[in-house]
Amino acid sequence: MESHNPPVPHLTTALTGPLYEIESLLLSRQPQIESWLRSEWRKTPAPFYTSVDLRNAGFKLAPVDTNLFPAGFNNLNPAFLPLSVQAIQNAIERICPTACNILIIPENHTRNLFYLESLATLQRILIQAGFLARIGSLMETLHKTEILTLPSGATITLEPVRRDDDQLYLENNLPDQRFIPCVVLMNNDLSDGVPELLKEVQQSIIPPLELGWERRRKSDHFLHYNQLAHEFSEQLEIDPWLIDPMFEKCGAIDFKNREGEECLAAHVEHLLGEIQKKYDQYGVDRSPFVLVKADAGTYGMGIMTIHNASQIHELNRKQRNKMAKSKGGQSVTDVIIQEGVYTFETLGEDQAVAEPVVYMMDHHVIGGFYRVHTARGADENLNAPGMHFEPLAFANPLNLPDHNQEPDAAPNRFYAYGVIARLAMLAAAREIYSVTGEAE
Amino acid sequence: MESHNPPVPHLTTALTGPLYEIESLLLSRQPQIESWLRSEWRKTPAPFYTSVDLRNAGFKLAPVDTNLFPAGFNNLNPAFLPLSVQAIQNAIERICPTACNILIIPENHTRNLFYLESLATLQRILIQAGFLARIGSLMETLHKTEILTLPSGATITLEPVRRDDDQLYLENNLPDQRFIPCVVLMNNDLSDGVPELLKEVQQSIIPPLELGWERRRKSDHFLHYNQLAHEFSEQLEIDPWLIDPMFEKCGAIDFKNREGEECLAAHVEHLLGEIQKKYDQYGVDRSPFVLVKADAGTYGMGIMTIHNASQIHELNRKQRNKMAKSKGGQSVTDVIIQEGVYTFETLGEDQAVAEPVVYMMDHHVIGGFYRVHTARGADENLNAPGMHFEPLAFANPLNLPDHNQEPDAAPNRFYAYGVIARLAMLAAAREIYSVTGEAE
Repeated sequence: MESHNPPVPHLTTALTGPLYEIESLLLSRQPQIESWLRSEWRKTPAPFYTSVDLRNAGFKLAPVDTNLFPAGFNNLNPAFLPLSVQAIQNAIERICPTACNILIIPENHTRNLFYLESLATLQRILIQAGFLARIGSLMETLHKTEILTLPSGATITLEPVRRDDDQLYLENNLPDQRFIPCVVLMNNDLSDGVPELLKEVQQSIIPPLELGWERRRKSDHFLHYNQLAHEFSEQLEIDPWLIDPMFEKCGAIDFKNREGEECLAAHVEHLLGEIQKKYDQYGVDRSPFVLVKADAGTYGMGIMTIHNASQIHELNRKQRNKMAKSKGGQSVTDVIIQEGVYTFETLGEDQAVAEPVVYMMDHHVIGGFYRVHTARGADENLNAPGMHFEPLAFANPLNLPDHNQEPDAAPNRFYAYGVIARLAMLAAAREIYSVTGEAE
Repeated sequence: MESHNPPVPHLTTALTGPLYEIESLLLSRQPQIESWLRSEWRKTPAPFYTSVDLRNAGFKLAPVDTNLFPAGFNNLNPAFLPLSVQAIQNAIERICPTACNILIIPENHTRNLFYLESLATLQRILIQAGFLARIGSLMETLHKTEILTLPSGATITLEPVRRDDDQLYLENNLPDQRFIPCVVLMNNDLSDGVPELLKEVQQSIIPPLELGWERRRKSDHFLHYNQLAHEFSEQLEIDPWLIDPMFEKCGAIDFKNREGEECLAAHVEHLLGEIQKKYDQYGVDRSPFVLVKADAGTYGMGIMTIHNASQIHELNRKQRNKMAKSKGGQSVTDVIIQEGVYTFETLGEDQAVAEPVVYMMDHHVIGGFYRVHTARGADENLNAPGMHFEPLAFANPLNLPDHNQEPDAAPNRFYAYGVIARLAMLAAAREIYSVTGEAE
């Protein structure tokens, strides 16, 4: 798997003291950590699949976004696909032991070739795992099967989802040979809400519809993560801040009509002060910053980077309009103010910024990639609309820590990424449990 | 994983008709096969680990040996170790969810460096999976910890196994800090029987002691396999012979005193006739042969290749002595006469014979290698004492069939190997169930 030896980003900060310490701890406590995670998955099983955006500031390693409807599977190292195949087999065994047929419900943006390549990869993994996997689109304009050929050469077949009573199906050529799935796998984050077609169907829908972005709140997720980071840090006897981004919430903001700005500015100022205290404690000579994000919604819409509370009052019309609407068009009234974590991983001579994204299937880490971006700063969100990044697949698997190497050697850094990403996934598992009252 | 592109052996027979057909069927029925296997694993869970020797005659693909205490982990492609790590995590979760400590009990031959390299690899996989794994030796001459350095540079620490009441443990430096395993993983095939030390201990011992070679019979295994091959072939509508080696049993043979030779010769003659019928049916222009093996025991001791029943009466003293004792020194009284399956996979200009060995952890195929041997014939056993082979790690994972390639393309041939090897493993699972009355 390492034969290509693609470059691994370098940490460009001297402030690696605490992180080196975390990596050492994660490595030396590996059996304890894995044992604890095993017991946690028994209480709240992992979501079917999850991707987690991490930021590595050298002095701090933390998740900044946890996606329950991941895309980007085409960016993973193909060498690790067998891991996905195996993990999926285990996950489906648990959810639907007799499952043969899986219906994937994708996003509706059929023009996004990156997304479609990811969808094709996901379908291929499910087929290689031994399932009949077909793609059922919710697009109202799709009346019959459509076959798209992608730049990679893969083809993708979109079929309209049909419903008979409480059963979803796809048509086959012969009317008595419907494709009736046992599992409906959502790869659509339901930003527009849950369509009538999917309500109260007899089939298992994973992840549960309640976790769509119409209902899900980032602040719920990070509250669970915050709690977990404390539990985990207590065991390891570390400061939870080293793995946990602080956040505050502000409801009832109206960017368009400039209402609630005072509340937001006060929270921003307070959080910047809290970060500064931590920076002072650890001797971090950097300017604190926060991200203001819509509490609901994804895709980095309605996100801004703020270094100073006064910026809140100085937003121009364009900036305010951009914040006022999230993906799917919902109005933003609730925002989360999250501690900004610097990205100090850079690549190449031009010091391109690199942000790791970790992918998991069931409770296993199955790979990941770096979003590499030359034109962005270390304090910016790298997953924003119109943003262009180069994916750099992880060269290492994340489950092969090497106790004979330094704690910050590549296999061990990747192990650390896998641990923190799994903590974020565990937070999502608790979130699912708290929303649905049952494990996925 | 395929970047090195090591050579894949070629089939050197024109008689590939039926095999090509099997490979096509396995590929096209993959969802059905995987779904059926899933339901079977729920009835009889897979052993913790298994290796299966296959033989590929072009017209026939069949298991010839199923090992429940596999060695040879060092021969696997290191690129696939993440698959083992993940599979082990799932297996241990099921057997002992809280397990942190695993005690490996190895074979006693400390001078076999190949074996010790395998042991070191097995220990490393368990450690990477997040367990504390130590090696407790049963050697009576081992009174204190011994550290061995291997040619690969790995070191291995052997410690004497201790027992307190019904609990096994290893000593630590401090007397109140014993290493108490939750799981005892046998990598010792118990050819000499079950030592008193291991009897009735409170810890889970896997595989169960009843499956040691003192008690296990090859004929039991192949009877289960035969039954399974019929169930499987019925679904696929193929002749079970294409995947099943025929066999007969002969009890009460005494090679030393030349008793029971008539019975053996009669079975050999009958089986050779049965094979000839099948060869006629499929137009195989080869001479049938059988292997006579001790029904108990492993390591290819007490095995001979027979082309003609008259050979049984012509055995010289040396040959008879060789057959009379199995590994561990037990007398051989029961033999199995097994249909010989030609190996028509060869490698390189010198047409070295190659025999695939498939490795599984839990119910997942995690890799394999070819035993490549230049000095042996296509009708000989390649796993015999004193035999030297070159391991050639599989370049492909076995769980990534590619429906866009020909059925006999490498990924699909490896998938076929994985299916037949899992059938043999399922036979072992039923064998375990029938012996212990419970799933492992």
